[in-house]
Amino acid sequence: MTFELTKEYLDQIQTAIDTGDDTMLRAEMEELYPADISGILYELDTESARYLLNLVDRGVGAEIIANLDDSIRDEFVASFTSADLAPFVEEMDSDDAVDLLNEQSVQVREEVIGLMEDREQARFIIDLLHYDEDVAGGLMQKELIKVNVNTNVNQCIEEIRQQAEDVEKVYAVYVVDDAGILLGFVSLKKIVLARKYAKIADIYEQDIVSVETYRPVDEVAEIMQKYDLDAVPVVNVQGRLLGRITIDDVVDVITEQAEDDLQAISGLSGEVEEDDTLWVRAKAQLPWLVAGAVGSLMAATVINGFQSELGKVAALAAFIPIIGSTGGNVGIQTASLIVQSLSDSSGLTYSLGQRLLRTFVLALLNGAVVGLMAGCYTLLIGEPRLFPVVALSLLSVVLLASFMGTITPLLLDRIGINPAVASGPFITTANDLIGIGVYFSIANVLLAEL
Amino acid sequence: MTFELTKEYLDQIQTAIDTGDDTMLRAEMEELYPADISGILYELDTESARYLLNLVDRGVGAEIIANLDDSIRDEFVASFTSADLAPFVEEMDSDDAVDLLNEQSVQVREEVIGLMEDREQARFIIDLLHYDEDVAGGLMQKELIKVNVNTNVNQCIEEIRQQAEDVEKVYAVYVVDDAGILLGFVSLKKIVLARKYAKIADIYEQDIVSVETYRPVDEVAEIMQKYDLDAVPVVNVQGRLLGRITIDDVVDVITEQAEDDLQAISGLSGEVEEDDTLWVRAKAQLPWLVAGAVGSLMAATVINGFQSELGKVAALAAFIPIIGSTGGNVGIQTASLIVQSLSDSSGLTYSLGQRLLRTFVLALLNGAVVGLMAGCYTLLIGEPRLFPVVALSLLSVVLLASFMGTITPLLLDRIGINPAVASGPFITTANDLIGIGVYFSIANVLLAEL
Repeated sequence: MTFELTKEYLDQIQTAIDTGDDTMLRAEMEELYPADISGILYELDTESARYLLNLVDRGVGAEIIANLDDSIRDEFVASFTSADLAPFVEEMDSDDAVDLLNEQSVQVREEVIGLMEDREQARFIIDLLHYDEDVAGGLMQKELIKVNVNTNVNQCIEEIRQQAEDVEKVYAVYVVDDAGILLGFVSLKKIVLARKYAKIADIYEQDIVSVETYRPVDEVAEIMQKYDLDAVPVVNVQGRLLGRITIDDVVDVITEQAEDDLQAISGLSGEVEEDDTLWVRAKAQLPWLVAGAVGSLMAATVINGFQSELGKVAALAAFIPIIGSTGGNVGIQTASLIVQSLSDSSGLTYSLGQRLLRTFVLALLNGAVVGLMAGCYTLLIGEPRLFPVVALSLLSVVLLASFMGTITPLLLDRIGINPAVASGPFITTANDLIGIGVYFSIANVLLAEL
Repeated sequence: MTFELTKEYLDQIQTAIDTGDDTMLRAEMEELYPADISGILYELDTESARYLLNLVDRGVGAEIIANLDDSIRDEFVASFTSADLAPFVEEMDSDDAVDLLNEQSVQVREEVIGLMEDREQARFIIDLLHYDEDVAGGLMQKELIKVNVNTNVNQCIEEIRQQAEDVEKVYAVYVVDDAGILLGFVSLKKIVLARKYAKIADIYEQDIVSVETYRPVDEVAEIMQKYDLDAVPVVNVQGRLLGRITIDDVVDVITEQAEDDLQAISGLSGEVEEDDTLWVRAKAQLPWLVAGAVGSLMAATVINGFQSELGKVAALAAFIPIIGSTGGNVGIQTASLIVQSLSDSSGLTYSLGQRLLRTFVLALLNGAVVGLMAGCYTLLIGEPRLFPVVALSLLSVVLLASFMGTITPLLLDRIGINPAVASGPFITTANDLIGIGVYFSIANVLLAEL
């Protein structure tokens, strides 16, 4: 039922482009959904992609450009003049148009807006450009259907008819008063079923969830998920209806956030994908590998400082891995739970003090288990004098790592950095380093031989 | 605009429950959305929660039960008899009803279905119980509006009126032939705007994306996202319309998947949350910590085997952390990219051979950079004889970890395990262990002193 892009099909398309077989290309593209055409564009060089894009319907072309992956779109759109771009921007939903223009230089942005023939769309865009992209205002679109509370169903249907082309998905008609203040909504289903001359005032639903322009997008996503909304109206502080956010944009926000978290934890910078060029991948991986290496070499310096001790009790070296990895593992576990709880605020959350107390108790338990395991291992290898050193070190390491795993994401979140970074290799390495320091210090104090 | 649950409010509610102040409770619950009432139930004990639930409208109660978190719902519903449960199940959307019944014992399931008065709903549920919950059939609901292609708009509106109560969100009316084969759809917007006696055959849209009952849910999520669908019809292999999947269910799938990935990478088993009891958290964290510790103690055994070597060249111990952490970091990075590419199959993907070749080239580069860094450090601490040992070991470790990071998630995915596990502590520890083995083996060969 859905389209599957094959190497053979792609070759056919490329040949048609090279030989200028526009009839075949137009016929083929006619059959496909915009999202499938995007899939083809990804695999073509910029010139071929532009050739193909110019053959499809302008509206479809606009939808395709709106939905391209950011990194590919940058490169692709760079080959457009402002005059090339304006007709596409004109056809986009206002929220997509703004996203695209925000990626361009101020000059291109101004030129494109100036070149647009649809002045209403231009005004929409200028309005939306004011908002940061991480708040509701930056995610909303101006296209929506609203009716005055004093109209009737018939007038409402007329309004829908007039806006039908601009508003692809209606979901609901918003009801406002004379001042444009949002009062409620009427679902499309209700309009279908209502008598033609029924007054909107009599049939509209007053219970409506709306969000203010300044609400962070992750809060918007949470609200839409919590209340199972397909679209949420956006209002200013006075309650005036300014736009709406639809569920597809929120799905994108959720997916992107999940990818960001995954990348932050995995120690990848930037939005890299497996099929990116090796150079892009190296640029994403190396900074964190180098940072990790620097941390580990600092640990090396610590260990090196204890060379004479190691010379006397060589078995001390055997516990370096467990000290390092336990700290890292506990840190990641703790931080991930905090990250998860930050992004999902249902129910009551604990105060910082309560969190730290809970962390402490749990760390005592975890540390005791791992410490005793490693302690028993010292007996197994016939180094009982290392029992207290290893067990006490692991307990301390688990306590420290749990504490850092709790504090760091909360701190990062407070200063506006993705808290998932706290589960990444940087923190793991920091835990590693601290762990080694603690271990050798404890060894130094407890072992009479050293 | 949205409800914020406070300790004070909760205390008021608890007091009203204790004193049996039903008037106050009914009035308060009337004001709230079901999702907000759920938030309150989470904080009450089972008895109080049931008391409150029995005061709200049956339909609202059904929606609340349908949307409770799994872990809490299990415990909550366990206090219900089949006769208590049946009226709620009757009011639920069929997909939610099936999710709930699937969590019950066969006996409760049969009893509840037997007790239901609405036999159509009972038939819906029996139909849906056949499907696994991880395929489209297990996610779909039977509630939808369909019309025969030979009807007109007026008849279609009549159909909507009859189903209005059962189908909360309509989105589109599906068009079928006499045999029930899905032919296309008419959007609600189009119905609002169409003439009353327009034939469905003349106005319906034939381009429709549908999914078969056996499609995995993550594929369904991907398709709905790709084509920006609010609902997707589900058909059997003959193309007969059986149900539909709505976007809110898919949002839940996406969110859950992201959480699963995060937990798998972080080494947490089960669906644990920060505000769970410490005992639940310990059960989630300890198995991985213990597994990690076992791995590290195996590394300890390896290191211990090289005690005499360490005794001669104590500086060897200093590089244990960098060997371990670099392997872990590279493994996580590589595996995460594969996990991401597995869950997002836009564009062409590489064959296994191409993937391994790309991995190899990139690993050479990464390994060379980190190896040279550590090599320079050996000069800094006056141990130039360790330069080749450390540099060569790191290069090997990066190569091995990259290789494992590529293969393991692909393999896990093939056998149906969440591939994100491959970025977790288990694999990290395995890389750690292998790294140590390689390091000491290379040292053994290259250092004449040993």
